[in-house]
Amino acid sequence: MLTRAFGAHAADKPLEAIEIFRREPGANDVQIEIAYCGVCHSDLHTVRSEWAGTLYPCVPGHEIVGHVTAVGSAVDKFKVGDTVGVGCMVDSCQSCYACADGLEQYCEHGFTGTYNGKTPDAPGHTLGGYSQSITVRDKFVVKVSHPAEKLAAVAPLLCAGITLWSPLKHWNTGPGKKVGIVGIGGLGHMGVKLARALGAHVVAFTTSESKRQDAVALGAHEVVVSRNAEEMQAHANSFDLIVDTVAVSHDLNSFINLLKRDGTLTLVGAPEHPHPSPMVFPLIMKRRSIAGSTIGSIAETQEMLDFCAEHGIVSEIEMIKVQDIETAYARMLKSDVKYRFVIDSKTLAA
Amino acid sequence: MLTRAFGAHAADKPLEAIEIFRREPGANDVQIEIAYCGVCHSDLHTVRSEWAGTLYPCVPGHEIVGHVTAVGSAVDKFKVGDTVGVGCMVDSCQSCYACADGLEQYCEHGFTGTYNGKTPDAPGHTLGGYSQSITVRDKFVVKVSHPAEKLAAVAPLLCAGITLWSPLKHWNTGPGKKVGIVGIGGLGHMGVKLARALGAHVVAFTTSESKRQDAVALGAHEVVVSRNAEEMQAHANSFDLIVDTVAVSHDLNSFINLLKRDGTLTLVGAPEHPHPSPMVFPLIMKRRSIAGSTIGSIAETQEMLDFCAEHGIVSEIEMIKVQDIETAYARMLKSDVKYRFVIDSKTLAA
Repeated sequence: MLTRAFGAHAADKPLEAIEIFRREPGANDVQIEIAYCGVCHSDLHTVRSEWAGTLYPCVPGHEIVGHVTAVGSAVDKFKVGDTVGVGCMVDSCQSCYACADGLEQYCEHGFTGTYNGKTPDAPGHTLGGYSQSITVRDKFVVKVSHPAEKLAAVAPLLCAGITLWSPLKHWNTGPGKKVGIVGIGGLGHMGVKLARALGAHVVAFTTSESKRQDAVALGAHEVVVSRNAEEMQAHANSFDLIVDTVAVSHDLNSFINLLKRDGTLTLVGAPEHPHPSPMVFPLIMKRRSIAGSTIGSIAETQEMLDFCAEHGIVSEIEMIKVQDIETAYARMLKSDVKYRFVIDSKTLAA
Repeated sequence: MLTRAFGAHAADKPLEAIEIFRREPGANDVQIEIAYCGVCHSDLHTVRSEWAGTLYPCVPGHEIVGHVTAVGSAVDKFKVGDTVGVGCMVDSCQSCYACADGLEQYCEHGFTGTYNGKTPDAPGHTLGGYSQSITVRDKFVVKVSHPAEKLAAVAPLLCAGITLWSPLKHWNTGPGKKVGIVGIGGLGHMGVKLARALGAHVVAFTTSESKRQDAVALGAHEVVVSRNAEEMQAHANSFDLIVDTVAVSHDLNSFINLLKRDGTLTLVGAPEHPHPSPMVFPLIMKRRSIAGSTIGSIAETQEMLDFCAEHGIVSEIEMIKVQDIETAYARMLKSDVKYRFVIDSKTLAA
């Protein structure tokens, strides 16, 4: 089955309209007509092979929402017409300890990414959501119960949303907890919304004085401009959890010092160059931790989507035509987006 | 009350015999005749003011065991003749969240160290266990139930022992867990003994091929020479907890990579120069943590001592006369001790 897509043939080539192959649904497959696909920084890193190892043609996109157009004979959880989502994973080994624990994102054999992952399907690697349709194993498809008119803004929940939800839940975000979100971009703005809805006292950290009002509008109880040492010091030893979404090298000590005893600084972005080495003494003297977290499991993704539907939470988005993807990438690199670009997949037909 | 001690009058002066003042026991005090005192690296750092801020005269020593010689009117937990211990703390605020949680080592106002801590007693700072007697608030005294002939070897449990016990217990060491101990010195050798007795599968990490047999004798199920990349790789992704006792700057990544998902590398030593910056990706992809821990609470210390008495655990020691302390320091700096020097306090009378 041929479908229209947008992808690149090489790291130094722009994305363009291409046709790609999608398999016919097998017994456990769900075929999805894609309505919208969010634009993630990882898309850009991968399509330009900045992390190395990109296989071409490369079709990015792992914040996918759409509707079921066919299901395999063994699929009972989904039916034609259902509104569904697909995130960063389309398969995993299903047999390792991580998969047995329902934590496919930590699959010991490596999960199959929604793009640039190994697959028996042509061309041998997975092709993502900048396309009109996708066929996905049912276990990696989640249900969307938001109202139809919110669907585009649901797309970024599939990566940005779950990347924050998983650590927030893992480290027990809820009433009585003080939680910090560092970096108010695609990931961070979801962190503020989710932590607020989970009942925590939420502090947004930004380097831009200009984002202060925006962060409050997103739900932050307080906003701290992290370049301001005095503002930072006022929050010393007070956080249960700080989730740091900033993927460029920066000083971690100033955030570690804001954690209370047994508090955790969780990194969800991996910088190209290492962060300056964190000091050991502030870890030792308060039994603090620095941890990392990546995306979230399928079960967590479903839980997050249901929670968001119940609480009326979606991402803040700017809709684009697929033909404008290069412009969107350029703006994304300048953090000139509030807060996530989403491709209107209808424009693939143009 | 005057008592004989061994201390230094300045950072560049050797320790020598001095006389110091001990307060008469107040209502809540326990007066202790010191039998033995362990020699900790911190003693050396402090007496030479390597951490800055040392007040003189300085009498080090915070691995104290001895017998009760008097108790205050309000003390009901101890009586004259009891065998007791005093570790790194002799007081704390008793009112902050940490103290309320029974975690005096994390007292938000800073615990009072057994030496070089602020006190109303003359000379205004606490003087430690290289002395014939000490007067300590009852809440900071613990009971020793080991057989009398083991008493000298109990002394190092009060710092080296509890520094390992607290993180081992906090991070759930027990049957079914795989636990690593990095550095087989004063701290590490206690880690191996304690983790083994707690039922974990214990792996000792050393840089010295020569310590392989010793580590097995201490109770390690396996010994890994950490300079050997192949030996290290054989343990990739397998540890629940690694406690790193090495207080000089070293690569943490090679240990982080040995942690399984959700595993923790806990640092109990603070190097003078920071460790090379740990890579973020290995934290993120397995939800691993780097944490720190310092000594342990009074309740944990009592629990550890009782556990050790029950399991016949003591430290491996080399007894010295107090007059040989400078030689002991020099040997300690060369790691030429198996595994802890202990001062025979009777030699203070000489």
